[in-house]
Amino acid sequence: MCHKDHIRSFVISGKFRNPLRIERYDVTMNKPCIIFLIQCPDRKGLVSSISTFFYERGFNILSCQQYSDLENGMYFMRIKVALEDLPTTRRQLEDEFSDFGKPMGLIWSVHYSDRVQRMAVLVSKTSHCLYDLLLRWKENELDCDIPLIISNHLVLEEAAGQFRMPFYYLPVDQANRTDQEDSIRKLLKQHHIDLVVLARYMQILSPDFVKEYAGKVINIHHAFLPAFQGGNPYGRAYERGVKMIGATAHYATEDLDEGPIIEQDVERVNHECTSDQLKQIGRDVERIVLSRAVQAHLERRIIVTGRRTVIFSS
Amino acid sequence: MCHKDHIRSFVISGKFRNPLRIERYDVTMNKPCIIFLIQCPDRKGLVSSISTFFYERGFNILSCQQYSDLENGMYFMRIKVALEDLPTTRRQLEDEFSDFGKPMGLIWSVHYSDRVQRMAVLVSKTSHCLYDLLLRWKENELDCDIPLIISNHLVLEEAAGQFRMPFYYLPVDQANRTDQEDSIRKLLKQHHIDLVVLARYMQILSPDFVKEYAGKVINIHHAFLPAFQGGNPYGRAYERGVKMIGATAHYATEDLDEGPIIEQDVERVNHECTSDQLKQIGRDVERIVLSRAVQAHLERRIIVTGRRTVIFSS
Amino acid sequence: MCHKDHIRSFVISGKFRNPLRIERYDVTMNKPCIIFLIQCPDRKGLVSSISTFFYERGFNILSCQQYSDLENGMYFMRIKVALEDLPTTRRQLEDEFSDFGKPMGLIWSVHYSDRVQRMAVLVSKTSHCLYDLLLRWKENELDCDIPLIISNHLVLEEAAGQFRMPFYYLPVDQANRTDQEDSIRKLLKQHHIDLVVLARYMQILSPDFVKEYAGKVINIHHAFLPAFQGGNPYGRAYERGVKMIGATAHYATEDLDEGPIIEQDVERVNHECTSDQLKQIGRDVERIVLSRAVQAHLERRIIVTGRRTVIFSS
Amino acid sequence: MCHKDHIRSFVISGKFRNPLRIERYDVTMNKPCIIFLIQCPDRKGLVSSISTFFYERGFNILSCQQYSDLENGMYFMRIKVALEDLPTTRRQLEDEFSDFGKPMGLIWSVHYSDRVQRMAVLVSKTSHCLYDLLLRWKENELDCDIPLIISNHLVLEEAAGQFRMPFYYLPVDQANRTDQEDSIRKLLKQHHIDLVVLARYMQILSPDFVKEYAGKVINIHHAFLPAFQGGNPYGRAYERGVKMIGATAHYATEDLDEGPIIEQDVERVNHECTSDQLKQIGRDVERIVLSRAVQAHLERRIIVTGRRTVIFSS
Repeated sequence: MCHKDHIRSFVISGKFRNPLRIERYDVTMNKPCIIFLIQCPDRKGLVSSISTFFYERGFNILSCQQYSDLENGMYFMRIKVALEDLPTTRRQLEDEFSDFGKPMGLIWSVHYSDRVQRMAVLVSKTSHCLYDLLLRWKENELDCDIPLIISNHLVLEEAAGQFRMPFYYLPVDQANRTDQEDSIRKLLKQHHIDLVVLARYMQILSPDFVKEYAGKVINIHHAFLPAFQGGNPYGRAYERGVKMIGATAHYATEDLDEGPIIEQDVERVNHECTSDQLKQIGRDVERIVLSRAVQAHLERRIIVTGRRTVIFSS
Repeated sequence: MCHKDHIRSFVISGKFRNPLRIERYDVTMNKPCIIFLIQCPDRKGLVSSISTFFYERGFNILSCQQYSDLENGMYFMRIKVALEDLPTTRRQLEDEFSDFGKPMGLIWSVHYSDRVQRMAVLVSKTSHCLYDLLLRWKENELDCDIPLIISNHLVLEEAAGQFRMPFYYLPVDQANRTDQEDSIRKLLKQHHIDLVVLARYMQILSPDFVKEYAGKVINIHHAFLPAFQGGNPYGRAYERGVKMIGATAHYATEDLDEGPIIEQDVERVNHECTSDQLKQIGRDVERIVLSRAVQAHLERRIIVTGRRTVIFSS
Repeated sequence: MCHKDHIRSFVISGKFRNPLRIERYDVTMNKPCIIFLIQCPDRKGLVSSISTFFYERGFNILSCQQYSDLENGMYFMRIKVALEDLPTTRRQLEDEFSDFGKPMGLIWSVHYSDRVQRMAVLVSKTSHCLYDLLLRWKENELDCDIPLIISNHLVLEEAAGQFRMPFYYLPVDQANRTDQEDSIRKLLKQHHIDLVVLARYMQILSPDFVKEYAGKVINIHHAFLPAFQGGNPYGRAYERGVKMIGATAHYATEDLDEGPIIEQDVERVNHECTSDQLKQIGRDVERIVLSRAVQAHLERRIIVTGRRTVIFSS
Repeated sequence: MCHKDHIRSFVISGKFRNPLRIERYDVTMNKPCIIFLIQCPDRKGLVSSISTFFYERGFNILSCQQYSDLENGMYFMRIKVALEDLPTTRRQLEDEFSDFGKPMGLIWSVHYSDRVQRMAVLVSKTSHCLYDLLLRWKENELDCDIPLIISNHLVLEEAAGQFRMPFYYLPVDQANRTDQEDSIRKLLKQHHIDLVVLARYMQILSPDFVKEYAGKVINIHHAFLPAFQGGNPYGRAYERGVKMIGATAHYATEDLDEGPIIEQDVERVNHECTSDQLKQIGRDVERIVLSRAVQAHLERRIIVTGRRTVIFSS
């Protein structure tokens, strides 16, 4: 059951064009670029040989960030070069880098900034995280397309409509759980989704789903993990009498609330705060934390390593 | 076994006078005052009748802070009046207030600022919290006497000596656990201690001790409770890949790390932080959090209610 | 020149009803109340006599917050009583309180929570503060009506339309400056506006306007005042190489950026931040700071005293 | 006039050895290293050629941080290599790097971690910044020697004595200003001082002094610059009614309070804070900010460029 009639007109030839945000390509003053994210066992000569690989092909290195995890002997690099310097096809560059990296055991991915990422937002009834994402998208803080919003409730259809965003209503209950998730997956595939954001989507995704989209699903947990894992964190924070409340954005993994943490923040509270006020204060923390995590992901600044994340600065 | 020879000269007629800090009474510009901390079931007329009690006796109310916990129907008040206005003896005032409060079910305590509180600091090997307390004491931020520092190790004897503080070395092992705690208790009694601060004292106090000193023992836990309860919180924070680390000051209760929280704070960290750097950053959070909690207690700004604390602003 | 055709249908019988936000009165769980804001020279017996005034009339005091400014000998009180306890007419209560307060030199104002405040938002081209106010209004964090948005540009007409908010376009240039301000004033009067929020309105209001609406115009300055007063604060912050940027919400006064400060906050930045990134980070600070200030005003938690503000906690 | 008799015993053969801190070399688990700080006009191939320079000489690159200032076309690098890999003399390495860097217009400096830096602390009467530096030094957070503390007052002689630090008393008045500064300079030379920390030293240094020690004098200003430049910032912050107070650590330059900012932080305050309380809160901010700045300098993480600083992360 999909309510999407009102948005059909914006989906032209497989690509969603939202008239609310015509100016994006003008304001992004950054030149198109290629970003490599690399990790491998640490050893001598990595900076030199990797940067030389790009220099020899005539690339201007716009930025090159590294991190040597001395405790675990691992090396991480994010290297950003100008796309206009590309002397070959993209395929050829990738093949050459693949050959180059094999002896060093490089695990890597490559991202081209002119290929706009496609983000799906999953929501339930709570609007603040959705609105925050839509506003930042509209203000060009998030460099992506948002071809669809999916929800198991109708509450936020109007919010999506305010931003002329396609809204798909996929209700779920005990009986149709598997089918509903299949419908979600089908939509994500059909729209070539790169990133799924759980913006207070109050359903648990199956292990299969999470595995298929590993490193591509960002969740916001409304507590400062690992404190208050599980349900009703604000109520429990109130009862415990904490003096700060927080929020955590993390990649979804099979173990609920155990995925690699991308971003966290807190806000000071006091004994006068009722549970409701904790929730309001928490909403501000949640939206900021989720947006920062999504932005870091879209800007290809995150490398996941085990349960931890390396977040390069912007 | 007590190493206290070097301090004997400062203990004159039962009262400890530390020459390092002669100027306290001059710099505390606040006039002597009486503070009442009150809690009771909420009902009409409480502010009016309590403030009138003091007005009728000629008191100037220097400050009067209240909090109505509407969810639990409880009322809390901190009222501060000028000591110089006291028209009777202290005993008489207390008797009158007791008679006055009985019908309303007031639970209350009274504190006279000219009766300087006596604080004992318990430490093990880590110096940063101890130093912070001693410096703030020296700079007159903490209005108390510190007649003794107790430790199960000798490491910090020198730190105590730097500030000419009496240092008692009471080593502990499996065999003498009860005896050592008895020695501590004896010392606390002997020195008329009002407040015990566990400034990274790495021993667990017995339930009996904690019960006897209920609301009078402040502990610093080096994590943002309820996250990372128990041992080695920084190591576990590192492994979990959190993006902030914190500290929690709370009253000690029988259930370890479950006591009413007085103060918490956090500091941002990132993937580059080694466990050692987490510890360094954590030290700064710990000392600030512990000092704020101790200051709030000494200034009689805390009322404990169940597992929560009401902290009136300074 | 007013573009308001699209909103006419929502203005029914002089009162604006926005269908996007039907549920407000349900979710505000607080009982209707009366709030008195009081200031006067400090003296003995104020708490007692004022609280007794309300007690004698049968009021339940929901909260009573005070602050004695000992340096300047001034006393401030915010007292909140249940409206349902009102034994007389409002007028009668006010007359009685006026008689009561005269001998003590009370300066006071009274506010009834069932009289919803009416807020106008003035904007230019920047959307983030406007959106933030509209979203919080929609999520019932701001207890007010917003009968009109006024702008000297057309850019944000669509944003207003998304929330079905009346949008008045009043362009301004050197020649029509006085006329345009007159049009604004007429609109504010016509709509019985209580509070004017300058949500990045990039025009200077005349001294007459500011005087007429003293204590009723809140401005957001995009810097941590008194640093970077005047124009282009982010550019100047970039050049000065500061390590934090901030925002300040204050009441508008004749001297630009010199009005009483209501709220401030900052965010950490570093050398890698371009002017554009400073602006993005700044936007998040601005919207939070402005919203907190507006909320404090609407909740009647602010008393202005000279160049300073007393902000009672919520 | 120098009171240093009590410390003579610790100065052995020109090198100051403080017995309070014997364990430094054990706890610093980092291997000895060489750090190059480099800046030059940005151009293609910089990372590649510089890193190759070190790779060809057999160095293991422990970390390599860069920043391209695209707005000003400048490039900055901090590269850290293992000292044990040094295949030649230090002099030879420097000559080779000098020849290598000339064509690219590199401005650079080199630092060897086994050459412990020597820091002088200048103070007046206020103790909190001095104590903080001494404690961090004692806890091995600051990797330096502190061969002398200089003051124009005697107040802090005892604090220095607590840490067995040489204390030089050099009083100053209108008449002897030049002579006193000459005495300071002589002491700094005599003790081969690398870094001068003005830890609330309330005297203005002459332009000549500041020029001679350019980039080597760190000052703490007790306000969030550029707000409240000049004297009595807390008093003026109180009068302006700000809601946060801050501190700024910066390199000293001829124009007072205009030097390149290294670190800033703020703390929230409210209307209840008296000037005295602002000062207490400010002290905590000052000590944290100054210590972070000193640590960044000692770890060679700062490059000054015009009025701005590039601060590499630790």
